[in-house]
Amino acid sequence: MRTGIEAFDAVAVGPGDDCAVLHTGSVMLIIGVDQLVEGRHFEPGTPVDQIARKAVARSVSDIAAMCATPTWGLATAALPDGYTDGGTLSDALHAAANAFRFPIVGGDIAFSDGPLVLSVTVAGTCAEPALRSHAEPGDGVYVTGKLGGSFPSGRHLSFEPRVAEGLALREHLADQLGAVMDISDGLGRDAGRIADASGVRIELDASAFPLHDGCTWQNALADGEDYELLFTARVPPPESVAGTPITRIGTAAEGSGACVRTPAGPIEPCHESGWDHGTPA
Amino acid sequence: MRTGIEAFDAVAVGPGDDCAVLHTGSVMLIIGVDQLVEGRHFEPGTPVDQIARKAVARSVSDIAAMCATPTWGLATAALPDGYTDGGTLSDALHAAANAFRFPIVGGDIAFSDGPLVLSVTVAGTCAEPALRSHAEPGDGVYVTGKLGGSFPSGRHLSFEPRVAEGLALREHLADQLGAVMDISDGLGRDAGRIADASGVRIELDASAFPLHDGCTWQNALADGEDYELLFTARVPPPESVAGTPITRIGTAAEGSGACVRTPAGPIEPCHESGWDHGTPA
Repeated sequence: MRTGIEAFDAVAVGPGDDCAVLHTGSVMLIIGVDQLVEGRHFEPGTPVDQIARKAVARSVSDIAAMCATPTWGLATAALPDGYTDGGTLSDALHAAANAFRFPIVGGDIAFSDGPLVLSVTVAGTCAEPALRSHAEPGDGVYVTGKLGGSFPSGRHLSFEPRVAEGLALREHLADQLGAVMDISDGLGRDAGRIADASGVRIELDASAFPLHDGCTWQNALADGEDYELLFTARVPPPESVAGTPITRIGTAAEGSGACVRTPAGPIEPCHESGWDHGTPA
Repeated sequence: MRTGIEAFDAVAVGPGDDCAVLHTGSVMLIIGVDQLVEGRHFEPGTPVDQIARKAVARSVSDIAAMCATPTWGLATAALPDGYTDGGTLSDALHAAANAFRFPIVGGDIAFSDGPLVLSVTVAGTCAEPALRSHAEPGDGVYVTGKLGGSFPSGRHLSFEPRVAEGLALREHLADQLGAVMDISDGLGRDAGRIADASGVRIELDASAFPLHDGCTWQNALADGEDYELLFTARVPPPESVAGTPITRIGTAAEGSGACVRTPAGPIEPCHESGWDHGTPA
């Protein structure tokens, strides 16, 4: 029997959003964890510093998607038997966190007869967490930056988590900001998650998608690993925040699910467009 | 370049103890993470509820070793390809945490082509964290419960983290309590860690070790996975706390390292007696 999460006083927001939100006395703590698996999230042979940087940046992106600032982290590594770069990897995890201006305060290293598996927990703070459940019918749907082609281009290793952008959106829009999440599994799938969490229908317009060079609207919809912020707002946001352009790509409406108006005209469901990295525990 | 951990205001205690200690406004947060790897920490074929319970209990034991109470947790799982018990495992992780009266507030599930790898982060609270670095020359060295044979007996799956015992020790001994840690890698190795962290020498007396049936002093010294509390105190502790007996097994002295007086008389170094589950990141 699972006890209802609401039974625990420390919990403001439980599983299902980018991060959980915990009350710790006078301060609200934002906390999330993500894994990085060799062969899934990076190719064997990727340099250790890039692996560590991606592991940290993925979790920082979840903090950014709460409009929060990272404050500390934990890291674990399950190393393949015979792996000799454990010390380098540990140093690289600390350095990657420090580059985002927070410390790794603990962790664990073990060995396994499988591929390299990392987990990075990041905690953060904010005045008001931005949740996936905050979209309302009538909201505009927006995205930061450009979409598509993250894996083949190598951007999945070098992306900038949108921390400054999340903070700027909260500052500019205050309570007119709706739902926020980061695009890790593909715009279509992640839009479906906002739709589910908020009880709205997300209608996307493929011809409006901001595309990386050489990418199609289908790449934008389904490639994943963009780590841009997908958000809704009651009023128009600035044209850019923290130097990153913002593009309106759709509208939240009454209903459920996510759909996309294709450039040729037909409207197609898209909440299963993307790839399933896995689901929250 | 790793930034010194002391540069970060949120950090009271960084890597190297059972848990990190963070300041979060008015409340001090205790936080730690441990991994559980199939083939290392449990045999393939172990029932899912026992795997989940051990993963959670290991991290709770680290909280207990800070004389703290668990308040919330996060869990990750890297599932072998084709693994179909993910939902059951997730439910079991929640249930195991709830049995220790705290919620799992978030997590991540991914797939890999390796063995099952779990990580469980647990946060806790306490008035005053008990650190490995608090032993002083002249302290008595004590252990809760009995030692040895954890893996072959199955106790490594069913042990009770010593949360109530840790709290009772702090209550009874207050600032006369010295260093505290939980015995995961073997008494000898873990005594060496207290010696290193505190800048003392730990002298153990093998003839005093409290043994599980069928175990020798060598089992007690090196088997590991006992999850009993190893602690030092300036004054004698109660004979038992929370129903668990306490046994004096040695003394802290000036010097460095850990050694054991064997029943036959000779004194041997023992800080490498045990097994290396891995080291903190």
